[in-house]
Amino acid sequence: MLMYFITSNRHKVEEIQKMTSILIEQKRLNYPEIQADTLEAVAEFGIDFCYSHLKNPCFIEDSGLFIEGLSGFPGVYSNYVFRTLGCEGILTLVGENRNAYFKSVIAYKDEQGRTLFTGEVRGYIAETQRGDKGFGFDPIFMPEGDTRTFAQMDREEKNLYSHRGKAFKTFITYCEQVR
Amino acid sequence: MLMYFITSNRHKVEEIQKMTSILIEQKRLNYPEIQADTLEAVAEFGIDFCYSHLKNPCFIEDSGLFIEGLSGFPGVYSNYVFRTLGCEGILTLVGENRNAYFKSVIAYKDEQGRTLFTGEVRGYIAETQRGDKGFGFDPIFMPEGDTRTFAQMDREEKNLYSHRGKAFKTFITYCEQVR
Repeated sequence: MLMYFITSNRHKVEEIQKMTSILIEQKRLNYPEIQADTLEAVAEFGIDFCYSHLKNPCFIEDSGLFIEGLSGFPGVYSNYVFRTLGCEGILTLVGENRNAYFKSVIAYKDEQGRTLFTGEVRGYIAETQRGDKGFGFDPIFMPEGDTRTFAQMDREEKNLYSHRGKAFKTFITYCEQVR
Repeated sequence: MLMYFITSNRHKVEEIQKMTSILIEQKRLNYPEIQADTLEAVAEFGIDFCYSHLKNPCFIEDSGLFIEGLSGFPGVYSNYVFRTLGCEGILTLVGENRNAYFKSVIAYKDEQGRTLFTGEVRGYIAETQRGDKGFGFDPIFMPEGDTRTFAQMDREEKNLYSHRGKAFKTFITYCEQVR
């Protein structure tokens, strides 16, 4: 039994492979990501494309930062917004309500159909950038119950908290029970 | 000879129909818009989807506001950014470099293949919102050579300047010459 993880990020593959004995193989496939209001809609479209090409059990993962006081911005477009406005842009925009969450969605498909798994971590947008680990908006996100940002944590520690870690765990539990 | 204009916006159909005797019919089709760095890439993917469904000469139009000092933000995601951050969000973000342009891309496809047409209008981000006509970022965009924003102009006047008007004109010229 072999599953494809369609991603260009080797670290994500290592992270999930550590959690299970199911064999996971990295595949690079340039699938379309649509513009939509939810990560779920993006992932559904993407996994349908991937499965129709690969015809083998496969999954994709996508995540975003949703800021309450900005109507969920940057959300689905977090990568683009990070590249154009960066952490500084978010700090400029954010007002009094600094509540935010990171969300990760995994879309999995096999001959039985499509299933989605999600993970979230709630927290706050920090007043300034702190830390130099991780990537993306990590330097401005503090998870609930901690005063450090994600960029101030080692990878293993961040994975314990993280939206992606939670989604991976739910997904693996499902796979190991079903198969 | 009949072409489909795939859009939910009746005004756009009226605007282009005024410019030509070629019969243009509005079609509503929920085609996927992908996440990409350029309007061109989004339009190419979209028109391929539409043409494969309709099998009749058809076109789509998409546009965005590109701000120089913000690395092109909000660009391809202008609709989403307008819905979440609004004009106020842009005014908060924009720094000293207020140069910007609106760009419109039309993708057309028939049995011969796919052709793209573009129109641009260069201008500046205003200091404050002005005017109540138009829609989207019109209240904060002043075209070069005018001190009013798009939202302070009547529709017909705005169309003279506008990126969309220019793209429509180029497209119609092509159709009338080729056909």
